[in-house]
Amino acid sequence: MATTQPPPPAFTADDYRARMERVVTDAAAAGFHGGVLVTPGPDLVWLTGYQPTAITERLTMLVLRPGHEPRLLAPVLERPDAEAAAGAAALTIVDWTDGSDPYSAAGELLDPAGRYAVSDSAWAMHLLGLQEWSPATSYQAMSHGMPMLRAVKDANELARLAAAGAAADSTYLEVVGLRFAGRRESQVAADLARLLQEFGHEQVDFTVVGSGPNGANPHHEAGERVIEEGDAVVLDFGGLMHGYGSDTTRTVSVGEPSAELQRVHDIVREAQQAAFEAVRPGIGCQEVDRVARAVITDAGYGEQFIHRTGHGIGVTTHEPPYMVEGEVQPLVPGMCFSIEPGIYLKGRFGVRIEDIVTVTADGGRRLNTTDHGLAVVS
Amino acid sequence: MATTQPPPPAFTADDYRARMERVVTDAAAAGFHGGVLVTPGPDLVWLTGYQPTAITERLTMLVLRPGHEPRLLAPVLERPDAEAAAGAAALTIVDWTDGSDPYSAAGELLDPAGRYAVSDSAWAMHLLGLQEWSPATSYQAMSHGMPMLRAVKDANELARLAAAGAAADSTYLEVVGLRFAGRRESQVAADLARLLQEFGHEQVDFTVVGSGPNGANPHHEAGERVIEEGDAVVLDFGGLMHGYGSDTTRTVSVGEPSAELQRVHDIVREAQQAAFEAVRPGIGCQEVDRVARAVITDAGYGEQFIHRTGHGIGVTTHEPPYMVEGEVQPLVPGMCFSIEPGIYLKGRFGVRIEDIVTVTADGGRRLNTTDHGLAVVS
Repeated sequence: MATTQPPPPAFTADDYRARMERVVTDAAAAGFHGGVLVTPGPDLVWLTGYQPTAITERLTMLVLRPGHEPRLLAPVLERPDAEAAAGAAALTIVDWTDGSDPYSAAGELLDPAGRYAVSDSAWAMHLLGLQEWSPATSYQAMSHGMPMLRAVKDANELARLAAAGAAADSTYLEVVGLRFAGRRESQVAADLARLLQEFGHEQVDFTVVGSGPNGANPHHEAGERVIEEGDAVVLDFGGLMHGYGSDTTRTVSVGEPSAELQRVHDIVREAQQAAFEAVRPGIGCQEVDRVARAVITDAGYGEQFIHRTGHGIGVTTHEPPYMVEGEVQPLVPGMCFSIEPGIYLKGRFGVRIEDIVTVTADGGRRLNTTDHGLAVVS
Repeated sequence: MATTQPPPPAFTADDYRARMERVVTDAAAAGFHGGVLVTPGPDLVWLTGYQPTAITERLTMLVLRPGHEPRLLAPVLERPDAEAAAGAAALTIVDWTDGSDPYSAAGELLDPAGRYAVSDSAWAMHLLGLQEWSPATSYQAMSHGMPMLRAVKDANELARLAAAGAAADSTYLEVVGLRFAGRRESQVAADLARLLQEFGHEQVDFTVVGSGPNGANPHHEAGERVIEEGDAVVLDFGGLMHGYGSDTTRTVSVGEPSAELQRVHDIVREAQQAAFEAVRPGIGCQEVDRVARAVITDAGYGEQFIHRTGHGIGVTTHEPPYMVEGEVQPLVPGMCFSIEPGIYLKGRFGVRIEDIVTVTADGGRRLNTTDHGLAVVS
């Protein structure tokens, strides 16, 4: 059952160099004359291919400063790992030693009066260390200051996201053929994880199986509840394949659905479809949320749609842009994000339908294409 | 082979309440009149038992403010998870909704001119959001402002750390009986992971197998290199058992060691022993580092000991206190940390010996007790 597609071409040092050069240019244009500071996590993976074994208290930080070559500050004992990264040839590694002050070492690479965009998930401890090193510096979180950093995917990235989406779809098509009634949520979750891996994922990030009342908690993962005839079951699963994310949700009915479940499912399906049809370059992210929310609110379930409509996806399964009220960022071709409206009836059941969508020149294209009908499972 | 010890008593809401009360008192004494801000991660687990499914961009933050009951700010869709935490009965949950400003919601719980200790790994994005919400607030990282927060373990915690250490020791005793020569590092690493789990670990955090030249990179994990007769192999492994960490290192010789390997091993062993013997209440953490380093430097390998001597351990496998030059924090009975000197000969081999040690009333006690001799494996 493994995927038969050849893997996409590997990213080269030249690819990473081009990304870093573009980011420096964009940073200056966005008013970050100091540049961009990137700590371990998705931004660093995307810019350099470097992913330390663990994110620890030791400071690792990529400094992209206008007019300077890219430099990566790293603990000396992690230098060999950093040197082995795919993008290492496109940067200079500067190391620091336990017992010395990493913020002084960082300071050597920085403008003490600079304004910087900094990775969202940089540790507060490190940001405070830099602020103390030079109180004249100033900072803004990457998502706010440079929300487009990784938002628009190139052809190679799109191919990876499409492959991950196809693998998730194959997983869904297999899982609906399995037995639900009488098995525990955790068993179905294990099936989802196994199938994602069989279809090519190298990492499983989440396998939500929310049966009956558990489905009304959108962040319920999977527990020991035994699934029963008559349950609605929310299946929300994804992970990384070739380094890029999948994330799809379908809600299934164990046996014939009640009229209420069918009606709620129809509303969510209509909301998902309407939001998808709204996707086109130039509209604000919040419009996607508003369109989905209007359908659900008009149907009388606005209070039961308790989360935003979507999030970006790329080297992580959760990243900007967010489809949420207040996000005015316009859609741009190549953006990829989820559209995942839901209705949650506390103590009873939940329904959510989610596809990853990419913005095209004149609309949107789904990267998940399994049917939106309420599947009946046994 | 599973551990036969009964599990330690579960932590109750009263345990968590007592921890939070102590922390508020300590915070005020340390000058944090605003209090303590705790985001998901080890501090939050320790204080409340709450570990969100994933650490995401959505703000979750425990506010411990003098004169107020503990409050946990959480995204509304994660409220059911938070309510299920063991410590939930000892706090009030306040939620916020996608599309609203989480920093305004946080602000409702804070003193706009307060000084706060904040979790080391709080996202920079959130710290910047709070700084923007009220520029009159000020912050210090928990490790710097309240380094003792989780450093001194109580009897229940010590029992868990001792159980984890014993399981790691059992793992070592099993693994030295297995074949090394002709197998890949990754295969031995898989054995270590399997054994840790068989002996009771619920989570494996790292399984370093550094053979020959790979052992000279202290952060090498395990790769595809085939282990050869004559190799030194660094084995450094650990994880969590009953929620508390293990971390131990032994270096073994595949076949009879060379005179040089034996000599380097003797030096590291002597350094580890000397540092252990230096442990007693009242000495500074940096003294432990200095004692180990002096032995290695005197033997002519000071430049090849490229990391600090140790780190604390508790609900994580890496936390304060750090045994490093510059750390003047005095040792206190109940502290638990690693003592792990090493010598790394680039391109050739490495040697490291690591035990977890707890400070007693008049010295130290090892939580790893396997022999320090250079084991010969086949």
